[in-house]
Amino acid sequence: MPALEPDEARRRFAAARVARLATIAPDGRPHLVPITFAVEGDRIYSIVDDVKPKSSQSLARVRNIVANPRVSLLADEYSDNWQRLWWVRADGTATIAPGGPERERAIGLLQSRYPPYRGAGLESGPALIVEVERWIGWSARS
Amino acid sequence: MPALEPDEARRRFAAARVARLATIAPDGRPHLVPITFAVEGDRIYSIVDDVKPKSSQSLARVRNIVANPRVSLLADEYSDNWQRLWWVRADGTATIAPGGPERERAIGLLQSRYPPYRGAGLESGPALIVEVERWIGWSARS
Repeated sequence: MPALEPDEARRRFAAARVARLATIAPDGRPHLVPITFAVEGDRIYSIVDDVKPKSSQSLARVRNIVANPRVSLLADEYSDNWQRLWWVRADGTATIAPGGPERERAIGLLQSRYPPYRGAGLESGPALIVEVERWIGWSARS
Repeated sequence: MPALEPDEARRRFAAARVARLATIAPDGRPHLVPITFAVEGDRIYSIVDDVKPKSSQSLARVRNIVANPRVSLLADEYSDNWQRLWWVRADGTATIAPGGPERERAIGLLQSRYPPYRGAGLESGPALIVEVERWIGWSARS
């Protein structure tokens, strides 16, 4: 089964509408949450918004990253026709930007990808920025 | 934003066609892979098959679970209409079944959910069985 070239893996990841962010909780457990995001080069931008469903859980990702910046993200396409399956994983290191130009960059990129972000809800939350070290992908078809 | 009741969270997870499995690698990094699965009670069954795209990476999940059985799984639905978003996370403890009745149970459940499994490709791989301790879910709509 063919591995995807890193550029093709990144291209597919960048075109996906949702990804899943895995962090490690302070108790050593893995933690998972779906995120909206934007890719620029080898950087993935996300933001803790007030728009989508959240709870006290919502900041778990931030606490986890502060304690352990190693993260993994996954974008995938599922179909019951398994000839169409593919997935891309991005492994990297995350930082939290509570303000400043990198957070502004995140907001600009996210607002251009996701119309609901063009309204309110981005005032308070920090941006999450992942420096991707490896784009790894597989596809059932080459 | 409304949390889902555990029974409803489990119901939605069980109906999803794909989930993402987070494990912790021996170097402490999170690892992510999409999986097909079946739910019975508070147990999630999966299997390392020969049908979908795999590589030496494919057994990373097995190695990781042997070293650290704590796992998290996520099923989610994305739509650009954010009123339709929901996700369910299952946190639990995984075991590997290279053979025996639990592996047979996994094969039976998976073959009844996924037609491609009814052919070949399930002879060699071990089953992954997750005892779920918490079903946590959120939905934009109650």
